[in-house]
This record gives sequence, structure tokens and C-alpha cells, in this order.
Amino acid sequence: MRDPALIKAMFSGVSEKVGSRNAMTTKRPAPATWLGATNNITQQFLAAGGRPDVVSLAGGLPAAELYPIAEIEQATKRALERHGSAALEYGAVEGFPPLRALIAERFSAETGGRFTASNVLLTSGSMQALDLIGKVLIDPGDLIVAQAPTYLGALDAWRPRRPSYEPLDWNKPDVALMAKAKFVYSVPNYSNPTGVLVPEARRVALLDAVAKAGTWLVEDDPYLTMQLDGPPPPSILSAAARRGGRPYDGPVIYLGTVSKSLVPGLRVGWTLAEPDMIQKLVLAKQATDLSGSMFAQAVAFELLDRKVDVVHSAGIVPAYRERRDALCSEAARHLSDWFEWEVPPGGMFVWMRSKGNAIDTDELYRFAMEEKVAFVPSSVFDFTGKDRHAMRVNFTRSAPETIREGVRRLGRAIEAYVSSRPQLARR
Amino acid sequence: MRDPALIKAMFSGVSEKVGSRNAMTTKRPAPATWLGATNNITQQFLAAGGRPDVVSLAGGLPAAELYPIAEIEQATKRALERHGSAALEYGAVEGFPPLRALIAERFSAETGGRFTASNVLLTSGSMQALDLIGKVLIDPGDLIVAQAPTYLGALDAWRPRRPSYEPLDWNKPDVALMAKAKFVYSVPNYSNPTGVLVPEARRVALLDAVAKAGTWLVEDDPYLTMQLDGPPPPSILSAAARRGGRPYDGPVIYLGTVSKSLVPGLRVGWTLAEPDMIQKLVLAKQATDLSGSMFAQAVAFELLDRKVDVVHSAGIVPAYRERRDALCSEAARHLSDWFEWEVPPGGMFVWMRSKGNAIDTDELYRFAMEEKVAFVPSSVFDFTGKDRHAMRVNFTRSAPETIREGVRRLGRAIEAYVSSRPQLARR
Repeated sequence: MRDPALIKAMFSGVSEKVGSRNAMTTKRPAPATWLGATNNITQQFLAAGGRPDVVSLAGGLPAAELYPIAEIEQATKRALERHGSAALEYGAVEGFPPLRALIAERFSAETGGRFTASNVLLTSGSMQALDLIGKVLIDPGDLIVAQAPTYLGALDAWRPRRPSYEPLDWNKPDVALMAKAKFVYSVPNYSNPTGVLVPEARRVALLDAVAKAGTWLVEDDPYLTMQLDGPPPPSILSAAARRGGRPYDGPVIYLGTVSKSLVPGLRVGWTLAEPDMIQKLVLAKQATDLSGSMFAQAVAFELLDRKVDVVHSAGIVPAYRERRDALCSEAARHLSDWFEWEVPPGGMFVWMRSKGNAIDTDELYRFAMEEKVAFVPSSVFDFTGKDRHAMRVNFTRSAPETIREGVRRLGRAIEAYVSSRPQLARR
Repeated sequence: MRDPALIKAMFSGVSEKVGSRNAMTTKRPAPATWLGATNNITQQFLAAGGRPDVVSLAGGLPAAELYPIAEIEQATKRALERHGSAALEYGAVEGFPPLRALIAERFSAETGGRFTASNVLLTSGSMQALDLIGKVLIDPGDLIVAQAPTYLGALDAWRPRRPSYEPLDWNKPDVALMAKAKFVYSVPNYSNPTGVLVPEARRVALLDAVAKAGTWLVEDDPYLTMQLDGPPPPSILSAAARRGGRPYDGPVIYLGTVSKSLVPGLRVGWTLAEPDMIQKLVLAKQATDLSGSMFAQAVAFELLDRKVDVVHSAGIVPAYRERRDALCSEAARHLSDWFEWEVPPGGMFVWMRSKGNAIDTDELYRFAMEEKVAFVPSSVFDFTGKDRHAMRVNFTRSAPETIREGVRRLGRAIEAYVSSRPQLARR
């Protein structure tokens, strides 16, 4: 992956790394090996996004001003009234029983009742599920076949287990390759970072290939409710469920969350999988945090039980659509000489690729910082370390006016970048 | 550690292991190596504790009927009013800034201002801190010097990193041994499982030895507020802080939590350490769950800011003291022929050792299940796998009457055990 010196240069002036005099002078044991191969880039991007003078198109954050604060306060009151001390306990490692049952019921509705609570584990956001899947399946060197570019958080989550990677080809899944993998990682709905929506035929083809290969398929689905141009095809999970028994026993491990449909700060997500895999994930979770927050899970239950997430998601879609359109129309004016993109049908991101790979987006980032605008360069999503010519641009966090201003700054950053390179400026 | 077949036998009828027909017939990748060396015993104990007909003296749970539900509801209301969307965000990986500052301030009060927010990481209970410490420091085979018997959750947390263990001798810390260790693990206040309170001189001696060895010292302090016979000696952290600079730069990594002073279901804990170690733990946490629950951390802030935890802890101590005394007096009547113990000055547990190691507590557990009473046998706390002659008995979860009934059942279980072994019955 990335060169730590380059990262440091990229962020100089954005966030100071904590230097400890003490660590230099006192002998202390060395950290674990994987830490030598990591960096604090996600943290740095979050820090850059938090600076009031920077327009951040970098993060993957929902719009804070749209959070349903009043509904959450009411749900908390109901949770404590209805569940009392059960909402304040350690509770079962699997999660708050009423919420597990409700999730099983929701997913059963579209698959003829294949899911029971034994198929459901509640986690601290989907991110914890990624960590647990790594813990359960990966020994150092084990293979993950992942769609590339890959969600940065997934790469972060698995790094401590030291896996190897090969890219997933959605157009022609490689059964022989997948047969060697511990699991396949996919984000079919409005992928992070590319915003791509995978069509139904390719979903089914991947499921067929995974079944043939005899491996697991992780279907990460955080953006499900962010449908800007109508509903996506059915999930791979539902296709797998229709083929199997009850309780669900298929190869798909499905991850969902309230982070986008309600708020991220509850840290409530769910994993659906066959019961044996759920039990293995439970063992790993018990060893990670004993149990999730029954408090947050009880509040989430009260919200989902009244379909607040469904109503709220539908309510915020028009605002996000407006923001996406603001980004894409302003980008057409200021960025299209050097970048090209497809308008994503949902999610949070536009993936912009430098025409003819002319622009190195790691380098561009430094110019963007000068202009006080942030994005995420492609290299952080790339386990091969080769793709340095695209960028992920977020459209959900800021108001349309701010997004347009960010795009104009990005345009100026590109101009400055191009001017500094005579061979490009001549083009 | 334990023999899986024995565990299965111990819990037969208590909790069914999920067997998957599918896992037998479908080829799926093998799990990670560490899972072969683990078991779901904590989960099983929790399940046994949840059965309404069983008196559970097994868990480490506070008394649910004493939870400050009204205060938590008010704190939630205040948190949403005062912090709004900031209480519903992903937020900084380090945790909710006001709570970090408050924790630094509290610990500074007794050490002349040595701690700043750079010394503080908020975690999902102390348990997550144990997981993160393992991630940051342990490669397979690395040495941990741990007090023995050891908190089961710590053994669980570190198992996926596959460490080796040597016992900590509190009476004569072995500097040469500790110099080979990645860290030393200790619970000086009312230890889990033994209830032991380590005197001040031994704390200071351990700190000296750790400093000489050039390693880290994890001071796990969940039971601090459960002071049944007056306050404990100062923490090892405070001794280390007084020796060093500002921000704090000592070798102690200190873990605290609201799980016992307020409620476990918020899942809010704090780690204090020198800033470089905090930054490494932050990298590991980011890779684990992106960030903690700002919602739960903001609620905890509102509670701690008004010292609800201090007032609440002081208020529940008399109830816990009564329960401890009920346990010990009833045990003197029914268990003292076969077991001996010291009355713990705080915490949640009495550690009972079989006189002359006559009774195997793994075996006794099966008789206890027949009598519908649960405890935790010593073997689960023992990384050497040798100690099978003691048991951990909890006194915080149940009312005094229930505790007495549990002890009487335990007495009957011992009688049945002894009767089944003629060589003991003749004694």
C-alpha cells in the first residue's frame, strides 16, 4: 500500500502526528508486525474533514443536519420504559433479542420466511462485522478475493490478520481462484468507493461461482437505503436464501447497518449468516467486547419497530439527490477537462478517473490542501498499490452550495497541478 | 486450556450447541487456527445464568435492580440537547472529546495535573481495550506475564493473537522474565477471580520491576468503585504519573469503565497511557469499529460530569456489602468442611479453594447443575490448565436471600459429589 513518507507529506499542516520524546529514550517492547504496514490515513482524512476552513468531499459521512434527533430522544424514552434494566445490561453476545428477531423477520419477508434469530448477530456498526469475519477466517497469508478498488475500512479491518488479496472480476468470476480464498468480498449496492450498482445477472453469476468454489461471500450493504434513482436489484443474500433451507444456510454473509438509514453514532449493525458461522462470529465478538451496547441496540429496536429508519431514509433521499446533482453539474463545468465519471444511482460517492491517467491523485491531494478542499485519492482503496489516478468525491455531507464551492476549489487545484507540470500544461 | 469434550459434558442440558447439518455437507473454508483452541464457555456460563430456575453465582454482573434508570434517561435528554448531532456522529476514533477531557481532569486531580486528553482513549468497555492491546503488541508466540489466575475475558481477548504466558509473582516480580514480555497484566483492586487487594508496597515494587525490565504494565481496574471496606491504595498509574512528565509518559496502561459504577450496557470504558501508545491503540480501534458510540459516550459524559457515577457507586456499596456478608456467613455454615476462602474487601467475587485440593471443581460443576446452582470453576482462569480445585462465587447479582439459597444448593452439590467418591466420603 502507501508510502508512509508520502502520507506524511500529504498531510503536513493538516494534522500533527504525536511525537513522544519518551518513546525515543525509554526502552519499550516493539509493536505487533502488522502495525509496521499500516498508517493513520483514515484518521487523518477525518481530521482534515473537521477543519472549519476546509471543504471536505473526503469522508463517508451522512448529513448531520438531517439526523432525526427528536425521534431518537423519544425512542430512548420508550426503550427505557419498555425494556428497563434489560436495555442497560451486558446482554447476550448475539445482541438484543427483540432486535435480532425483528431483523430476521424483515429479511424473511422477501424470501418466504427463511431467516430466524439464529441467523442474526448484532455488531457495533458493519465495521465490527468486518473485523470479526477477519478474526474468524483469516490466518496470515490466507487469500481474500475482493472487488477492487476496495472499501478502505475493510482493508484496515483485515490488516492485523495479514491476508493476501486477489481482485474479484464481476464480469467473469474465477471459480478456481475463489476456491483458494477464505472468502469473497463484495459491495453490490452503490459501492464504496466507485458508486457502482451491480446488475442482477452478475449478482446471480457471482453466487453461482461462489457456490461452485465452496467458499464464503461477504455482501457488504451499508448504502441500501440511499437509493437516488429507484430500488436496486434483490440482494445476493435473498437469492441464496431462496435456494436453501430454514434457518438460512447459504454461503452469503450479509452486513447491514443503521449508520446511513438513521445515524452512525448508535453503532448498530447486523450480520446475517448461516447459524454455525454466526456462532463462530459470536465467539470472536465475545473475545472483542463481551457484548454490544444493549442501550444502543434497544434504542435502535424502538426506531426500527416503528419503521423510523424507512420513513427517515425516504425523507432524506431528495436532499441527497440534489447534492449529487450539484456535485456532478458543477464538476462538468470545472473538472471535465481532466476527469471523467458516471453519475452514481445511489450511495454517497462519485468516482472520478483522470482522463488518460494524466493526473496522479496522491500528488493532486497536496494541491487540493492548498486550496482547502479534501477528497480521497484512489491509492488508499487499492491493495495492489498501483491505482493512483482516480479520486473518491463525497456528496452527502455538505449542503449543495458548499459542494459547488468544493468543486471549484478542486478545479483550481487541478489547474495548479497542471501548471506545475509543463508536459501536461502543453496538452 | 480446557478439554472441549469436558465442557460439552458440563453444559449438557444447559445450552445446546448449534449444530449445522449444512456445515457437514457443504464444503466451506476452515476457520482461523486460534478458533480450534477456543470454546464458548463464557457464553455458556451467561446462558446458565439466564435460566430462571438456576441460581447463578457464576457471572460478573452488577445488580440490575440497582441501575440508575431515571438518571440515564435524564442524561440522554441533556446529551441530545447540549451536543445535538455531535452525539450521533461517527466522531473521533479517540472518543467524545468532552469525556476524554473530563477523564484526563479526574486522573490529574490526584497526580498534580499529569494527564491531558492525549493520554485518553475511550473504548467499548474495558474489554475492547484488552482486545486492542493484544492487537497492538502481540504477534504469535509473544510472551505475556500475567497474574494467575487470570481474568477469563483477558485470556479470551488475546487468544486470537496466540500469545504465550508466564505467571506474575506479586511477591517477587521477575525482572529478567518481564524483560522478555510484551506486557505484564495485573488487576490490583479486588482481582477477578480472586478478590485480592494488592497492598501499596507490592504495587510500587511491581512498577519498579516493570520500569527496570523496560516493558508495559497493564493495570486493569474495573472494580475500583466497589470498595466494601474502605478505599484501596493509590493506583499503580498514579505512582507512575508522579515519576514522569506531562503529558503522562509512564509504562502503565490503565483501564477503567462505567460498567460497575453505573451500568454495563452503555459499553463505555477508558484507557490511559502515554500518547504514542494511545495513538497505536487508536490505529487498532479504527480498524476494529471505526469509532465508538458517540451517543453512549455523550450520555456517559453527562452522567460523569454531574458525578452521578460517584454518588451512585457510594449508594450501592451497602447493598453489595450485605450480599457479600450473606454469602460468606451462609458458606461458613454449608461449605467450610470442604472449602476455604478469605472475605474480599471489595469487588464482586469470593474465591473458594477446596481444602487439600480434594474436590475437582470442573467435576463439581456437573453436580451443581443438578442442584440448579452455577459458579465458575478455576480451570477457566488458568492458562497453565492445572488448577481445577477452586471456584469463583459472585455476590453482586442476586438478592441476599437468593444468594443464601444458592449456597445451600452448592452445599448439597458438594455432598452429592463427595458421596459419589468413596475415598472422599470416608474422610
